[in-house]
Amino acid sequence: MRLARITGTVTATVKQPALTGAKLLLADVVDSKGSVLEAALVAADTCGAGVGDLVMLAQGSAARMPTQTSGAPVDAAIIAIIDRVTTT
Amino acid sequence: MRLARITGTVTATVKQPALTGAKLLLADVVDSKGSVLEAALVAADTCGAGVGDLVMLAQGSAARMPTQTSGAPVDAAIIAIIDRVTTT
Amino acid sequence: MRLARITGTVTATVKQPALTGAKLLLADVVDSKGSVLEAALVAADTCGAGVGDLVMLAQGSAARMPTQTSGAPVDAAIIAIIDRVTTT
Amino acid sequence: MRLARITGTVTATVKQPALTGAKLLLADVVDSKGSVLEAALVAADTCGAGVGDLVMLAQGSAARMPTQTSGAPVDAAIIAIIDRVTTT
Amino acid sequence: MRLARITGTVTATVKQPALTGAKLLLADVVDSKGSVLEAALVAADTCGAGVGDLVMLAQGSAARMPTQTSGAPVDAAIIAIIDRVTTT
Repeated sequence: MRLARITGTVTATVKQPALTGAKLLLADVVDSKGSVLEAALVAADTCGAGVGDLVMLAQGSAARMPTQTSGAPVDAAIIAIIDRVTTT
Repeated sequence: MRLARITGTVTATVKQPALTGAKLLLADVVDSKGSVLEAALVAADTCGAGVGDLVMLAQGSAARMPTQTSGAPVDAAIIAIIDRVTTT
Repeated sequence: MRLARITGTVTATVKQPALTGAKLLLADVVDSKGSVLEAALVAADTCGAGVGDLVMLAQGSAARMPTQTSGAPVDAAIIAIIDRVTTT
Repeated sequence: MRLARITGTVTATVKQPALTGAKLLLADVVDSKGSVLEAALVAADTCGAGVGDLVMLAQGSAARMPTQTSGAPVDAAIIAIIDRVTTT
Repeated sequence: MRLARITGTVTATVKQPALTGAKLLLADVVDSKGSVLEAALVAADTCGAGVGDLVMLAQGSAARMPTQTSGAPVDAAIIAIIDRVTTT
């Protein structure tokens, strides 16, 4: 999984039916200090995340394990809102 | 998923049978400002997208979740046409 | 999927049984102008492609959707021979 | 799989139910000399690994093969603690 | 798939049970001239490969198609020992 910072929202009217009602958030993959490692992923939210939150992203088929995304054409999902990253 | 700009079309006569009738579009992955992050992906269209459109791409097995691509040898599909990306 | 130029062939005697009879081709991922984006992938041919051809590659589990590669340990397959890439 | 050095821990209260009880560790992918190749992956532990350990990571659907991660939205798992890497 | 040169071996006592007996080899992804494209992957051997061999790697779910790796948490496997790469 990756740490990511939510930076925005994505709106689409014309889309696959399975995306109806999905909240699609724009996110940058970051390291533990917040430096951006990869920009502008779009992820389906399953946790009530919002802009500015530090979250955990699952990518690939893992993104369709949650009931909220099962069967949808989703390759990235927000699966946790991070409380704390501890490094030594 | 990724934001992508449609830049062209791809035509092939000799191809896997499951691709018959598929519209194959060339796309560049972009960030929220339109800067190209990754060039020249080919994606199967499921949304009626065309050249110049800003779209959402699903990659990997997610690309075969739509009924239009199910069972086809497709690792990238256009699953939405983007109306608006909002960043703060 | 990716555009790729076939650059060579790969021969192996000791291999997984499911690869027996497979034609394994060396390919460079290219953009629409032919610039190399990623070098030296090995892909299973399903289209009768040969050295010099511009082809479409499927990667990941998509590469095992064709009947020719189903069940084989294949993560890249040639699924079309490109006639034409049109960009504007 | 990849060699990785455990660098920290990640805590999340709001998360997918299937992650309850999972130990989530921050890891850097390294080469055989310990140089960092990719920073800040989050992996589910299945081996009792801790900060400072050199481990083996499985990524993608492989990360859900262990009984500890089966069905969870996990795309990276620690599947071994490395005793020794021998290069010539 | 990728061409790779075997550079070493990896030993682990604490590991997922499905890895018991697996030979884990360190490999560098190379191009047709032997230049390293990606360093330090760990792959499960299914071909009797050894240090110095030029092999073909399958990655992702393809790595679990061989009977030797089926069901194991393996995302990279050696599926052939390369006799010859011919480029023009």
